[in-house]
Amino acid sequence: MTYFTNINKIKFEGPKSKNALSFKYYDPQRIVNGQKMEDLLRFSVAYWHTFTADGSDPFGASTMVRPWNHLQGMDLAKARVEAAFELFEKLDVPFFCFHDVDVAPEGSTLRETYQNIDTIVSMIKDYMKTSKTKLLWNTANMFTNPRYVHGAATSNNADVFAYSAAKVKKGLDVAKELGAENYVFWGGREGYETLLNTDMKLEQDNLALFFHMAVDYAKEIGFNGQFLIEPKPKEPTKHQYDFDVATGLAFLQKYHLEKYFKFNIEANHATLAGHTFEHELRVARINGMLGSVDANQGDKLIGWDTDEFPTDLYSTTLAMYEILKNGGLGKGGLNFDAKVRRASFDVEDLFHAHIAGMDSFAIGLMVADKLIEDRVFDNFIDDRYKSYTSGIGKDIIEGKANFHSLEAYALTLGEIQNKSGREERLKGLLNQYLLETISELATV
Amino acid sequence: MTYFTNINKIKFEGPKSKNALSFKYYDPQRIVNGQKMEDLLRFSVAYWHTFTADGSDPFGASTMVRPWNHLQGMDLAKARVEAAFELFEKLDVPFFCFHDVDVAPEGSTLRETYQNIDTIVSMIKDYMKTSKTKLLWNTANMFTNPRYVHGAATSNNADVFAYSAAKVKKGLDVAKELGAENYVFWGGREGYETLLNTDMKLEQDNLALFFHMAVDYAKEIGFNGQFLIEPKPKEPTKHQYDFDVATGLAFLQKYHLEKYFKFNIEANHATLAGHTFEHELRVARINGMLGSVDANQGDKLIGWDTDEFPTDLYSTTLAMYEILKNGGLGKGGLNFDAKVRRASFDVEDLFHAHIAGMDSFAIGLMVADKLIEDRVFDNFIDDRYKSYTSGIGKDIIEGKANFHSLEAYALTLGEIQNKSGREERLKGLLNQYLLETISELATV
Amino acid sequence: MTYFTNINKIKFEGPKSKNALSFKYYDPQRIVNGQKMEDLLRFSVAYWHTFTADGSDPFGASTMVRPWNHLQGMDLAKARVEAAFELFEKLDVPFFCFHDVDVAPEGSTLRETYQNIDTIVSMIKDYMKTSKTKLLWNTANMFTNPRYVHGAATSNNADVFAYSAAKVKKGLDVAKELGAENYVFWGGREGYETLLNTDMKLEQDNLALFFHMAVDYAKEIGFNGQFLIEPKPKEPTKHQYDFDVATGLAFLQKYHLEKYFKFNIEANHATLAGHTFEHELRVARINGMLGSVDANQGDKLIGWDTDEFPTDLYSTTLAMYEILKNGGLGKGGLNFDAKVRRASFDVEDLFHAHIAGMDSFAIGLMVADKLIEDRVFDNFIDDRYKSYTSGIGKDIIEGKANFHSLEAYALTLGEIQNKSGREERLKGLLNQYLLETISELATV
Amino acid sequence: MTYFTNINKIKFEGPKSKNALSFKYYDPQRIVNGQKMEDLLRFSVAYWHTFTADGSDPFGASTMVRPWNHLQGMDLAKARVEAAFELFEKLDVPFFCFHDVDVAPEGSTLRETYQNIDTIVSMIKDYMKTSKTKLLWNTANMFTNPRYVHGAATSNNADVFAYSAAKVKKGLDVAKELGAENYVFWGGREGYETLLNTDMKLEQDNLALFFHMAVDYAKEIGFNGQFLIEPKPKEPTKHQYDFDVATGLAFLQKYHLEKYFKFNIEANHATLAGHTFEHELRVARINGMLGSVDANQGDKLIGWDTDEFPTDLYSTTLAMYEILKNGGLGKGGLNFDAKVRRASFDVEDLFHAHIAGMDSFAIGLMVADKLIEDRVFDNFIDDRYKSYTSGIGKDIIEGKANFHSLEAYALTLGEIQNKSGREERLKGLLNQYLLETISELATV
Repeated sequence: MTYFTNINKIKFEGPKSKNALSFKYYDPQRIVNGQKMEDLLRFSVAYWHTFTADGSDPFGASTMVRPWNHLQGMDLAKARVEAAFELFEKLDVPFFCFHDVDVAPEGSTLRETYQNIDTIVSMIKDYMKTSKTKLLWNTANMFTNPRYVHGAATSNNADVFAYSAAKVKKGLDVAKELGAENYVFWGGREGYETLLNTDMKLEQDNLALFFHMAVDYAKEIGFNGQFLIEPKPKEPTKHQYDFDVATGLAFLQKYHLEKYFKFNIEANHATLAGHTFEHELRVARINGMLGSVDANQGDKLIGWDTDEFPTDLYSTTLAMYEILKNGGLGKGGLNFDAKVRRASFDVEDLFHAHIAGMDSFAIGLMVADKLIEDRVFDNFIDDRYKSYTSGIGKDIIEGKANFHSLEAYALTLGEIQNKSGREERLKGLLNQYLLETISELATV
Repeated sequence: MTYFTNINKIKFEGPKSKNALSFKYYDPQRIVNGQKMEDLLRFSVAYWHTFTADGSDPFGASTMVRPWNHLQGMDLAKARVEAAFELFEKLDVPFFCFHDVDVAPEGSTLRETYQNIDTIVSMIKDYMKTSKTKLLWNTANMFTNPRYVHGAATSNNADVFAYSAAKVKKGLDVAKELGAENYVFWGGREGYETLLNTDMKLEQDNLALFFHMAVDYAKEIGFNGQFLIEPKPKEPTKHQYDFDVATGLAFLQKYHLEKYFKFNIEANHATLAGHTFEHELRVARINGMLGSVDANQGDKLIGWDTDEFPTDLYSTTLAMYEILKNGGLGKGGLNFDAKVRRASFDVEDLFHAHIAGMDSFAIGLMVADKLIEDRVFDNFIDDRYKSYTSGIGKDIIEGKANFHSLEAYALTLGEIQNKSGREERLKGLLNQYLLETISELATV
Repeated sequence: MTYFTNINKIKFEGPKSKNALSFKYYDPQRIVNGQKMEDLLRFSVAYWHTFTADGSDPFGASTMVRPWNHLQGMDLAKARVEAAFELFEKLDVPFFCFHDVDVAPEGSTLRETYQNIDTIVSMIKDYMKTSKTKLLWNTANMFTNPRYVHGAATSNNADVFAYSAAKVKKGLDVAKELGAENYVFWGGREGYETLLNTDMKLEQDNLALFFHMAVDYAKEIGFNGQFLIEPKPKEPTKHQYDFDVATGLAFLQKYHLEKYFKFNIEANHATLAGHTFEHELRVARINGMLGSVDANQGDKLIGWDTDEFPTDLYSTTLAMYEILKNGGLGKGGLNFDAKVRRASFDVEDLFHAHIAGMDSFAIGLMVADKLIEDRVFDNFIDDRYKSYTSGIGKDIIEGKANFHSLEAYALTLGEIQNKSGREERLKGLLNQYLLETISELATV
Repeated sequence: MTYFTNINKIKFEGPKSKNALSFKYYDPQRIVNGQKMEDLLRFSVAYWHTFTADGSDPFGASTMVRPWNHLQGMDLAKARVEAAFELFEKLDVPFFCFHDVDVAPEGSTLRETYQNIDTIVSMIKDYMKTSKTKLLWNTANMFTNPRYVHGAATSNNADVFAYSAAKVKKGLDVAKELGAENYVFWGGREGYETLLNTDMKLEQDNLALFFHMAVDYAKEIGFNGQFLIEPKPKEPTKHQYDFDVATGLAFLQKYHLEKYFKFNIEANHATLAGHTFEHELRVARINGMLGSVDANQGDKLIGWDTDEFPTDLYSTTLAMYEILKNGGLGKGGLNFDAKVRRASFDVEDLFHAHIAGMDSFAIGLMVADKLIEDRVFDNFIDDRYKSYTSGIGKDIIEGKANFHSLEAYALTLGEIQNKSGREERLKGLLNQYLLETISELATV
């Protein structure tokens, strides 16, 4: 069956195209710095937002007009798989991601849930045989069902911990079965509502125990995907334990888990934590922990996770800058953890939204590549820090200085001269590169 | 004397120029929709940030390296005037703005302060005879001196009210003398720290009395400039009375002042109030109250007024969109109420910063003009609201409907059909217009 | 049928009681400044949060354990009415509030919806004959159903406007029928998601037309309740038109609606708008527009509406201070627009929550009354502003001064002397009054 | 010389006292759980806010009326020391804290700066011989002077690193000389303005090198005080490296510094980072890193560091709860890193403010102690987590479970039962304890 009947395969038509249903900038086969754009970007569709979500919000009911709206249960689940692979092909995306409950409904027992998952996973596996689209990552939803009201691995209820373990065990089996490149842990309700009723230490100790069990089980079954933690500061809980990358890092180091995990960084989660997207990417990068990206955007004037499709070209450029500097994302990718607005309820909007996101990241890639190639910021930075390449600066870096030697040196100094940080000039350059890179490409 | 010895007149060199000290996009004589760019943009330099500010912040001392740093008192004030007109010419800006204390130091008495102002105003007037640069607006600083610790026109101390009246009287005399196109009231400390010690009603009544006196005096002396209120939600006080445009409008309406005032809207103040810049412009525009603009940008992750030079092209585009839709700013202009970062302390940075801001608004102008010319959003909106152009919708608009007729109509309706809001598509189009407009211009 | 089988009527047992299911401070018959506490506080239960809401959130399913969970449709609606009046009596609350859809399910047609409403309203009316609990206000839910995806009275779709008119017409009929003391308009989706697709002027003009029709219809049917607008800055839309009290006031004044409306002020909406609860109450009060209160609290570190039961004694004290200064709320009341946390899912928690809220406002009332009786802040403020009671200050207030007379006066002044605002002392006094008032009451 | 001529020694007069210049709740010799209140609270005066700050803000000049305002240079510095010890005695505070530049002006050379410090430190040491007031901590101001425009240990300029090393070396010498119980590192400008010009990795590596040198030097000179890092998320820089406790912990762990440092936690810095004060205390506590406290409060509606004196009794209660649970602060204390409001400019306000803060923490101590003594939250928490004390929960905690055993167990479970988190009840109890504890004390 065809679900998106009026939508043809989305093709690259170049920046002057008036066809809404075409890529203007994303050209999968275009070579950027020796690699194909599609290999550099590794886009992924988020199953939950695109196939499962219905447009409801805390103040409103479902709005999404979908060809599978009349179905229920496993019939619905199967239709979504069919629709998904149709969309993957029409958008030509190389990856997708899902939570267990996105693809298969929970049964009345855990065993029945397993069966539902098995049925759908088998169906997905069949589709994957003939599809180019692979599984970037899967995960277990451990926050929707009321059993997780107090958390999953951090629940005060040991039964919930056990149940969650069973869910992740199954998730890892599925990941192995489908060849997932990563497995993601987003905290869900791993956090607290009020300290008045919370034993934070026990909860975090338990979370670490849980992660160690997951690491052990992955080894046992030979799952080679990368484990990823996805930080978020709040929502649904008032305080999520994986607040941001730095917090996650402190946790992993404390519990000796840092070599098994990297981070899946989401733009909107970064801004909710008071950071820019690029800050979180940078922190992960310089700690060797940049694993994957949830490519979306938030609204900094809004205090909840809006999960918008990424269209801000500053954000996509600076994100791709960090990613290229990281040597790419390895097993990771750019997963559109983004939803069409509640008022964008047509099937067509799903395509407009993904096109907007893919074009925006393609632009970001091209601009970032050019900025790096021309060493625009690198040269400035090299010059800015060059005092550490000789003399007292070199001594410092090389561990040859101490407070005595530095004081002796400082006492010889007259007034210290600094150089301007040139922030306004650099921002002007960023604009010039944004516009000129694309302008030049347009004329090629 | 020459102050900016290594800086030549900044010229338009086009988007490919590698010369940092050139305009890449701002081409004053370029015709956009029948008008010169410089007439559409009406840029203004803010005297305080560019000539008076020294880079100090709550945690740090002065950093700015300026050729007038060795001077004091009236010598300093005169040097700044000389430097100002040199910079105005080198940047080719048509306007400037100042507070009284920016140009002339306070004396030990009010009378001496008046004399200082007279001396400098006379000097400025001389410069203006041969300069193209005019006074966009002036204003009185009624917040720095400790006498204003509890406010100016809203002070609990009637002496302070009287003193403030004298200051504004002088300010209006100066405005008249120098041919200012506007006179601005920014609230300064007109607000409160804590309600526990505040009579909000008396304070706001007094503020209204003060404004009426200003209106009367302007009439008396024949000052024809536009009066402007500049909203800001907080800082320096915890709660400023002119929180945002809507709050200012409620105040003006209540006290029958709305026909004498428009708004001077600052981007960073908008975001501190929880609004986008374009929101505030829109609210003012549809109420016929859009007077002028303080062109800067803030950082939405930062909770204080950062007054950065505007470089975000989304912001400049959407701002120019509102301004063009308003038929321009009339007597108003785009005043760079923006400061170089504390670490951008070279004289050269003043030029980099203004160039970045002017180029960014020039780009915004060109993109906005093209969006309007092509009716990109207009056509979509016309179609979106077309139900109000006939039938029941027309009846509603024309005041012919009431709850009875509408209920009768509603009872005949089946399921109501809405159309998608297409937000993602519109954002994609905005990006395409941003990049393609500039790309096309580059090749012209 | 009894729904809250293990809960007896909640009684006042005094501050030392260890019984969780008792009032410690709320003593309905206690006389405070000549009036009964229950008459001063006019508590109201919010039907939606207490009987309709199920604990679901954007990341999770229903958690609430309720004795009516097994029912559906009209059976469910009827059971809730029964349970409601049981709870009203057990809590001894004098008022309740509801949206139409809280009490009666929508039918498949508007006509069927009307019938459902009629059935339930008739049942409620019967209950009210023997209950002390009256209807503080009702309202129409014009945000949940997908037809309101683009707003109700501000929808781009005239059919939605008409449908909304029918809903409010019915709401006013119900208000009249049940003797509601007020009728509330909360903006719901009256706002915008993006300016790119929005005609803000037309939308606001339409909203004003809608309000005028409501005013006309209320007159026609002789509904004498107070109309209330409930401001909220954002959520569900990115920008709600009734941002805060000042914004609402500007709107009402512009469209000549100010004499027909007052404000229903919600604490959590105030803080989302960047104001304190008491600020919004003060602004409404000094403009003669303080109508009613949605008594809850938010978490200022959280960017969405958490609708918590009010327990912060500073907030309840300062709110009651404004309310007492307003001479009470007239037809308004203190409506607990508050929900038990998702993890507080027992029926018992509904009682704990209301007890906590009622005790907290009772404390606030007693402390505020004492602060006013002792003129703690009044005396300070009188002294602080006394310069306006004679001399130049009196001239200013009485309209006898102008810029000439004030300048002449100012030129005679030496250094102006201000007095300390004493904020720290006043905050210390507030703490002392909070603790000592209650301490003294405890020993009575 | 006497500076605070109209202020007598502040004495405990009990909660009913009308004397503004008395303690109502802070009774230093009162025994709380076997210890004197003054030993449990370890209050400290912040030299900078109380003796050095002048009331200026980014929009206004100095307002503070101080008896030393006519002095300059070393004369001023000496007068402040005299005044400080007078205030310490009149407030009876056991500790004080300072930055080097608070007590001694910078000289024209580093050597001269050293001399100034030596002179003042010698004077302080003399005072300390006869004073009960000891040095809680000192630190080096490495942010005010323009040389630190790009940071200190994280500056791009190696000369600045060296100069900073000399400053901290001297600071440690002073700490040793005066018997400081701690030495504090607050990040100042250790952060960044824009990533475009920043080598974050090099900067953080350098910061770690700097800390190691400080550790080495302290060992060398036998300084036994506790090293403390004071996190702050932003201000003055857009992004401070020591964002919050978790970020600081990640840094310390990465660079093997965790055994040498604890945290100095400031309430206002916590809220700027999006956390409650008690959250930061809890995170530090469960990681064994709670060192000391900067006792102040912010305004969560305000986005900058307001450094208000702490008067919120919820905050002081929950802070003291964490501190008591930590077994106290050890070498740490409660330092009033708080400033009188700019409008509270009298000398008397310094006393009002400290009294308000000390009384508020005394109340917090008494309430927290009672909550712990009665095991109000402890019992609830023990019960809430009891599933981990036997059966599968015990297996989990003891490391005996794995994904296989847990899955096997989960498959046997029916619907999982959770218990309510009772947040509303717990908040009601907190209020009851706040009011009743103090009420009971008042009658003793």
